[in-house]
Amino acid sequence: MSAAPEPSDLSPEFLAAAAPLRPGAHRVWSLIVTVFGDLARAEGDAIDGAALGRIMAAMAVKPEAMRVALHRLRKEGWLESRKAGRGAVHALTAQGRAGSQEAAPRIYAARAEGPEAWFLALGEGAVEAGAGEVQLTASAVLSPAPAAGLAAGRVEELPGWARARLCSEALFEEAAELERALAAVRVPAGLAPVEVAALRALVVHSWRRVVLRAPQVPARFMPEGWAGERCRSLVVSLLAALPRPEVGEI
Amino acid sequence: MSAAPEPSDLSPEFLAAAAPLRPGAHRVWSLIVTVFGDLARAEGDAIDGAALGRIMAAMAVKPEAMRVALHRLRKEGWLESRKAGRGAVHALTAQGRAGSQEAAPRIYAARAEGPEAWFLALGEGAVEAGAGEVQLTASAVLSPAPAAGLAAGRVEELPGWARARLCSEALFEEAAELERALAAVRVPAGLAPVEVAALRALVVHSWRRVVLRAPQVPARFMPEGWAGERCRSLVVSLLAALPRPEVGEI
Repeated sequence: MSAAPEPSDLSPEFLAAAAPLRPGAHRVWSLIVTVFGDLARAEGDAIDGAALGRIMAAMAVKPEAMRVALHRLRKEGWLESRKAGRGAVHALTAQGRAGSQEAAPRIYAARAEGPEAWFLALGEGAVEAGAGEVQLTASAVLSPAPAAGLAAGRVEELPGWARARLCSEALFEEAAELERALAAVRVPAGLAPVEVAALRALVVHSWRRVVLRAPQVPARFMPEGWAGERCRSLVVSLLAALPRPEVGEI
Repeated sequence: MSAAPEPSDLSPEFLAAAAPLRPGAHRVWSLIVTVFGDLARAEGDAIDGAALGRIMAAMAVKPEAMRVALHRLRKEGWLESRKAGRGAVHALTAQGRAGSQEAAPRIYAARAEGPEAWFLALGEGAVEAGAGEVQLTASAVLSPAPAAGLAAGRVEELPGWARARLCSEALFEEAAELERALAAVRVPAGLAPVEVAALRALVVHSWRRVVLRAPQVPARFMPEGWAGERCRSLVVSLLAALPRPEVGEI
């Protein structure tokens, strides 16, 4: 393994830009998934251990924590590693790639995409929300494709209490905090490729946590003040200012 | 008061035509309301006591029962009576006329009319159906104009359990029985005006009981096999075959 960069290898401009995104406060295995999803999502893509180590170190992840996380990700079938010279090369497995490619459109889309038509779907008795559905009451869900046997009506707007069901208070707060954090990030000129990769990963990781937990409903269904779509705009701007580096240059 | 006609004054053809509609099996005050709604609904219209007595007798109502019913209808503000020569003349009050005119379009329309758009309207807690709405579950109603605060989706079709909510079993059965009865009525030629008036009243009365209790929803929302719209077609045909007589000729 090559040595991970010391914090002193990182530019003060990078450290200032990354600070609002709280490097060091994220789960390491999840950050690694983000990095592969951002830089090496296509079949045949790989990141060598030294480059991955430098990206993770820029996000304040220690080598030992990275090794533990890589072990876990291999065990769970997300990553596969092979020896290459004195080091190792890591790549997403087919399963990891599928998961990553499924999530990518939701994470990277400049505009929220989701089903156009949403239905209030009511059961005679209790109804449990399925994948892509939202529980509104014990016997009703919001669904893009209501199950047979439910009474369904197409929804154009929702009252406050129903909008509140679409998003936990925790998620609502996390989106608001993320908006503040993203708005505080100033992308400096002249960042090194590893710094660009790390800053991208921090942006994408924080956003991924929010966007993948929010239902794919039109923004007007979400609670008043929902910051998700403003976060999306900030993410799109930041990523445009941080063009994806070549993995080989990191 | 003039003497009411004896059954022997009625033609055997009339008695045969009326039989499926069970003259004598209906509430007298309600039959009287039907007769006024059918023959004397406009402002200024009236029916004199002798003519009314003949119509009611043709429906197997005894003079004493008619007197009691007239008393009740006056007391409740539906009818007003004034002396005229040796008898009396009866007319709907303004209130009675308003009720009668409100119901008439639903009773006499050749095609069901009602709101075009229907919504599944869901409350956060319990919701009670208002006028013109149908209770689907404890917290949901079918409504043409959902109250503020309810989550509402426009309905195009309904599953069986929800359709069953639109109509009690009793009403479903009553419509089915009415269809059989109406289909059994053969309108003979040469009926006397009083017989036409009585036959019309029996048809309208039976239909009124069904149509005014059914929600004004599109037929496709009603339970499979609902006979209401077939009853409507039969009613329209029978009334066309029984042109409204002049009250003065009865």
